[in-house]
Amino acid sequence: MKILVTNDDGIFSSGIYALWEVAKEFGDVTIVAPNTQKSAVGHGITISNPIYVREIERENECKGFAVSGTPADCVKIGIKSIFPSRPPDLILSGINIGSNLGNNIIYSGTVAAAVEGAVVGIQSIALSIDSYNPTSFETSKAVVRKMIKFVMNNKIPSGTILNVNVPYCEVEDLKGYKITMQGNQYFNDQFDKRIDPRGRPYYWMTGEMIDNDKTIEYDGLAVSAGYVSITPINFKMTNVGFMKKLKKVMIE
Amino acid sequence: MKILVTNDDGIFSSGIYALWEVAKEFGDVTIVAPNTQKSAVGHGITISNPIYVREIERENECKGFAVSGTPADCVKIGIKSIFPSRPPDLILSGINIGSNLGNNIIYSGTVAAAVEGAVVGIQSIALSIDSYNPTSFETSKAVVRKMIKFVMNNKIPSGTILNVNVPYCEVEDLKGYKITMQGNQYFNDQFDKRIDPRGRPYYWMTGEMIDNDKTIEYDGLAVSAGYVSITPINFKMTNVGFMKKLKKVMIE
Repeated sequence: MKILVTNDDGIFSSGIYALWEVAKEFGDVTIVAPNTQKSAVGHGITISNPIYVREIERENECKGFAVSGTPADCVKIGIKSIFPSRPPDLILSGINIGSNLGNNIIYSGTVAAAVEGAVVGIQSIALSIDSYNPTSFETSKAVVRKMIKFVMNNKIPSGTILNVNVPYCEVEDLKGYKITMQGNQYFNDQFDKRIDPRGRPYYWMTGEMIDNDKTIEYDGLAVSAGYVSITPINFKMTNVGFMKKLKKVMIE
Repeated sequence: MKILVTNDDGIFSSGIYALWEVAKEFGDVTIVAPNTQKSAVGHGITISNPIYVREIERENECKGFAVSGTPADCVKIGIKSIFPSRPPDLILSGINIGSNLGNNIIYSGTVAAAVEGAVVGIQSIALSIDSYNPTSFETSKAVVRKMIKFVMNNKIPSGTILNVNVPYCEVEDLKGYKITMQGNQYFNDQFDKRIDPRGRPYYWMTGEMIDNDKTIEYDGLAVSAGYVSITPINFKMTNVGFMKKLKKVMIE
């Protein structure tokens, strides 16, 4: 099995190293990841600047391609210019430092990289750990192993990725797995206004995470209750139910 | 009615000026848009850099706030820091120079800005013209008028935006309006490899638009057949149909 590993935290992240460690148990792994931290770039792509690709080497013979672009760029250039003959069989994106849940997945480079894979018909999984400062990835690595075995024996439908979020706890403290709905977790943004040394005002985006969901059928609550959350995400976004009403009002 | 106008082509685009011209017929308009071209940034947001906001003035008393961030940033900062008392009643994003159709909407800053509005419960519409070099916006402006009247008399459901694409033709040559599904149009990427003056290889992302859809029920074909395409887009992306199978395989 040929596996493309990417992320949005950058090629030197501890999370991508953990993902590589597990992926290489199952096949030929090629890392193609941003050369720096690219969190919250969403599904941005680089169409107005050149993209540089540099081979790098990390510890323990972990090596890969560092790309001066976004996570979605990495998948695109990985498939078209780095993989020599045929596209990868599987794309793994992560392990992201910090969860990607609810409404917040729309900002996620981790999720976007997986979606980019699904656009061209490759089985793709986004993986995140629910901690901003993890010191161990053992539980996440067990989850990655399970997810890879899943795609070896099953097929994710066309146009769909799996968005997997892992609680930050020991393996024995995991409550289990929950197949969830994308929930309603969001950031209530605030803008912290400051004055720079030249007297010009500027803002930092800050905010507080809000999760008003009530059950562990939703991704955010499942994770905070100690479950691995697996949400199948489809990038075909037509609100079919509303089409009928629209047709009536706009056309007839 | 309070209207926030934004885009991804930047505050000096001809498209946002045309949108402003129509919007001001219906209410108080505030432009909050990127200070430069931000095409294909998707739903990126600026969390690791400060954001600058500068008041600018264009021709004919068209003025607004130029933001050193993404389209989604503009909506966030517009709602929280620029609109003084209450949030806008309507967000209009565009008029984008170039269509946003099919799979390609995932890269679109224009669509992302509208989605950002829907996340916080504001009626939001993304508008694009199917030309990379339009010299007249008269047809698009007629469409904008119709869309604003629509939201004055109807409600777009929670979590949904309207993605509107207008053919580049005279008003009298429009075939009509089509309520469409998000189609399958995509870019078949190619990477043009070059060597920079210092001997380092780099790539330009290029590509060819592919649209294999067969009917005008899909957005891309509707526009090329001369119809205004209106697609209701929902950012809740759970593939509910696949959850059952996943539950069986992953949990039981």
